[in-house]
Amino acid sequence: VICRLAVVGLGLLGGSVARLARAKGLAEHIVAIGRSPEGLEAARRDGVVDEITTDLAAGVRSADLVMLATPVAVIGRLLPEAWRAAPPDCVLTDVGSTKRTIVRIAESLAASRPLAFVGGHPMAGSERSGYGVSRADLFRGALVVLTPTDGTPAEALKRVSELWEAAGARVVIMDPDTHDRAVAAVSHLPHLVADALVDAVLRLDPGFLGVAARGFRDTTRIAASDPQMWREIFQQNRDALQEALGAFRAALDDLEQLVEAGDAAAVEAELARIKAARERLESRAAAPERSSAP
Amino acid sequence: VICRLAVVGLGLLGGSVARLARAKGLAEHIVAIGRSPEGLEAARRDGVVDEITTDLAAGVRSADLVMLATPVAVIGRLLPEAWRAAPPDCVLTDVGSTKRTIVRIAESLAASRPLAFVGGHPMAGSERSGYGVSRADLFRGALVVLTPTDGTPAEALKRVSELWEAAGARVVIMDPDTHDRAVAAVSHLPHLVADALVDAVLRLDPGFLGVAARGFRDTTRIAASDPQMWREIFQQNRDALQEALGAFRAALDDLEQLVEAGDAAAVEAELARIKAARERLESRAAAPERSSAP
Repeated sequence: VICRLAVVGLGLLGGSVARLARAKGLAEHIVAIGRSPEGLEAARRDGVVDEITTDLAAGVRSADLVMLATPVAVIGRLLPEAWRAAPPDCVLTDVGSTKRTIVRIAESLAASRPLAFVGGHPMAGSERSGYGVSRADLFRGALVVLTPTDGTPAEALKRVSELWEAAGARVVIMDPDTHDRAVAAVSHLPHLVADALVDAVLRLDPGFLGVAARGFRDTTRIAASDPQMWREIFQQNRDALQEALGAFRAALDDLEQLVEAGDAAAVEAELARIKAARERLESRAAAPERSSAP
Repeated sequence: VICRLAVVGLGLLGGSVARLARAKGLAEHIVAIGRSPEGLEAARRDGVVDEITTDLAAGVRSADLVMLATPVAVIGRLLPEAWRAAPPDCVLTDVGSTKRTIVRIAESLAASRPLAFVGGHPMAGSERSGYGVSRADLFRGALVVLTPTDGTPAEALKRVSELWEAAGARVVIMDPDTHDRAVAAVSHLPHLVADALVDAVLRLDPGFLGVAARGFRDTTRIAASDPQMWREIFQQNRDALQEALGAFRAALDDLEQLVEAGDAAAVEAELARIKAARERLESRAAAPERSSAP
């Protein structure tokens, strides 16, 4: 059990962590830290948190676990102050969608003051955001990637893993670089592509949206996500996104050339290969959950 | 009421038309025409159709409505034989995903023998196919585009519209060219893009699929569609797909350049504009259904 859990940023993810910790009794005392007291009041009224503050240093001062759950660009900016204020036995972790930058900042801070940091990324977003849509079961069945480095104490990794496993999530360990390349491919690239699909129809004729059916709706659902959050993600993960865009453009060009060439058998073989890969993904999602934490 | 309905091709769409006509009593007698008797037997056993045959001419001989529901490339090949065998007062219609080619064939056939043809496209597909997944309510709430031309008798358009309205569909009238450009943008392009997204991840590292969450699943669901059907659609609608691909590439390039330039405000403004367009689409889907048939 966590004695004192500090959640920094009480949006969809931070709010859901607080709700979950309260519902499952994972923490004795929960303090929420945010920019404006008004935004935090709702959580105190709900009984989801015990204490609220806009003072980061005061909020983390006696915490044994600090969960940084602000937008990804803000995590990097708040980390130095949280690092200075946290007690020596404290474990810091985060929910940022990209990991290289944050882990690099944590490592440079650890050089002057050793403190346990575990990079984390719960893959349980939504196109909606804010405390109002947070819920205790948000992470059930979700994947949570943790990105420890050589400097991460095993005990700290264990504590953070246990929190996510108590949430019903599946914990996977990756190095920060692999994580960022993987999410560029399966999350950031599809987002940019969904945005471009909507924009393409607007460029051709906005009236065409009148015949959009389920296929278009599914493919572009994520284009309705929060602009600021995604601008930050795209910029933080720019080089990995560029790599993923390169692979995507090559794949699209090759498919178009096959269609242009008119070789029916070759087009069908390509589509069948891709369909098979997509179906393996679906059968994996349906398989029973397993933890791959060490 | 239709006296004798002939459904050519008893897959997802043809099977659903037959089930719907039976369930709502829209046709007195239903004949199903297909390639192999085994494939049709199930529908006769179910009582969904009254008569089955592999002989197209015999099947349509005394029909007053013929629904061509084979894959899109096959419709064009079967149309001449169905045209010759159908009685003079018969109305022919189809469910093909592209309309210019089929309507052009019908118009050239009408030059030698006047007969009523109404091009149709119910936008109610699925990544699954075959009679086994057909259902009477498949078209409820779906959009059905009809593409009459100057040569289409108003009475024929009315009969086909009424059938789809009885199915609970929303009927929209478009010219064949606009239809093909619109579906290239909102259906065929998203399909090709979904295929390329899956292939891009396979090219980068198939292991990355291990962290694919809901966003990737939604965006690529349609990549699990039938390869033969989609190869035919891509090839039939090649020039409109090319136009849509051009607009998509331009949109993607512009978004990437904005991200590269690092102008936060400009990126957020673009994402906000696209999000607003996507949200209008969602609110339109939630609005009460209206028929826009003339």
